[in-house]
Amino acid sequence: MSAESILKRTVFFISDGTAITAETLGHSLLSQFANVEFDMRIIPYVDSEETALAAVQTINRAAVDDGCRPLVFDTLVNPAIREIINTANALNLDVFEGLISKISAEIGVQPSPVVGHSHGGVDTQNYKSRIDSVHFALDNDDGARTRHYDVADIILIGVSRSGKTPTCIYLALQFGIRAANYPITEEDLDDNRLPKVLKEYKHKLFGLMISPERLVAIRQERKANSRYASFQQCQMELRAIQGIYTSEGIPWLDVSEMSVEEIATRILQVAGLKRRISG
Amino acid sequence: MSAESILKRTVFFISDGTAITAETLGHSLLSQFANVEFDMRIIPYVDSEETALAAVQTINRAAVDDGCRPLVFDTLVNPAIREIINTANALNLDVFEGLISKISAEIGVQPSPVVGHSHGGVDTQNYKSRIDSVHFALDNDDGARTRHYDVADIILIGVSRSGKTPTCIYLALQFGIRAANYPITEEDLDDNRLPKVLKEYKHKLFGLMISPERLVAIRQERKANSRYASFQQCQMELRAIQGIYTSEGIPWLDVSEMSVEEIATRILQVAGLKRRISG
Repeated sequence: MSAESILKRTVFFISDGTAITAETLGHSLLSQFANVEFDMRIIPYVDSEETALAAVQTINRAAVDDGCRPLVFDTLVNPAIREIINTANALNLDVFEGLISKISAEIGVQPSPVVGHSHGGVDTQNYKSRIDSVHFALDNDDGARTRHYDVADIILIGVSRSGKTPTCIYLALQFGIRAANYPITEEDLDDNRLPKVLKEYKHKLFGLMISPERLVAIRQERKANSRYASFQQCQMELRAIQGIYTSEGIPWLDVSEMSVEEIATRILQVAGLKRRISG
Repeated sequence: MSAESILKRTVFFISDGTAITAETLGHSLLSQFANVEFDMRIIPYVDSEETALAAVQTINRAAVDDGCRPLVFDTLVNPAIREIINTANALNLDVFEGLISKISAEIGVQPSPVVGHSHGGVDTQNYKSRIDSVHFALDNDDGARTRHYDVADIILIGVSRSGKTPTCIYLALQFGIRAANYPITEEDLDDNRLPKVLKEYKHKLFGLMISPERLVAIRQERKANSRYASFQQCQMELRAIQGIYTSEGIPWLDVSEMSVEEIATRILQVAGLKRRISG
């Protein structure tokens, strides 16, 4: 088979749990191969002989349909289950292979595999921190309330649709950070200064910046052909908010080319925030 | 060094991007070692000689402080950067090692490493789906509105504090699913049937169930020593809602022992929902 002929491959992520680990790693690895189209499928909760045999059937069907064998990323810890998966017509990429034994040798402790608990199950303290932070983000979204800003870890500001809300929620879910957000409106921008209510929390403020092109595209989706979504309006708002960030000395980040994960991780780093949960 | 003496180890997750991949995999691997305390630290955006040298210093300091060398998980794609990290006094666990070359041999395509883009950067369609779904979850949280239920992918129901909101938000962020949620109140339970507004969307309903012990613990955090948080009240509500799930034939899930990720992944599977984004 020549390299040119292989442009599409089916990929399976298989786990006895959510398969999030296998999927996350697989995505990273596969993104290193440009120009190949991967059809990615997740098979979670493979924790019995039956579910493993069903997975093998699914994999084999894909092999026949594609005319070439699929890639399989697995994080299975039960050897009997893995043996069944290994009978499939596929390239098996055991994510844990080698690493477990290296760690074991280094720390001098034998692994104690627990099926389906590779994500640690319910850590009560972590669970509580996450849920509390998610509710904090919801209650303090879009400037809805400002009276809890004294307990916020961070307050995101930016123009409408610059990505504040999803970033706050991701900060809460992934890191347990209590993040509020406040939209800087046209009125605020006309005054060319921070809204009064934000002044005393200036040390908690963090600005989002976005390119006018991208802001136009996002706003067009919401209100097509409106003044709100026009290039001129977007550019005006962004210039004005950039002026406020600069004159007030507020740290900010250009998020135009970033995913929500990247924005949240960068903010954590730039603002020097300490995560409240271990991940 | 004897096995007994090693109870604590410092672990670093290092990447040229967010380090989420290294961290996710590392967590899974380390959870296989019970009784060992891992102090986990993330060093994201190691993408230059300077940041790599700073990381080495941090690792070496931990080695001195701990009296034993740390574990380092990295997903670095730049060989020059990785070489610097490898000079640290640590056990280096290269997450990508071996896997990239296996995939390359199988598909007959050479990898084209792009630093800092292992998460694929901004995929505009994915970004839009996620953001739209997050806003949908927020707008349709806690029964706030019901007029958009016709475009919902799923509507979660359950008693107060059974985990509906964080699950909806996770479904949106991770899978691009449009998830609404509706709290079943005591009044609804007294009537022993579904609220009227939900009847026509019965095929989209999915119930959350939780143990009375866990519900008491969660509600105690919110309103300590209230009737709302009493065992009797929680048990009564849960029995009543279980009756509704059964009589109405609504699929449901016991989430008492699950993390938010697990709840969302299970629901996706049980309800047969198709994710709108690739992860």
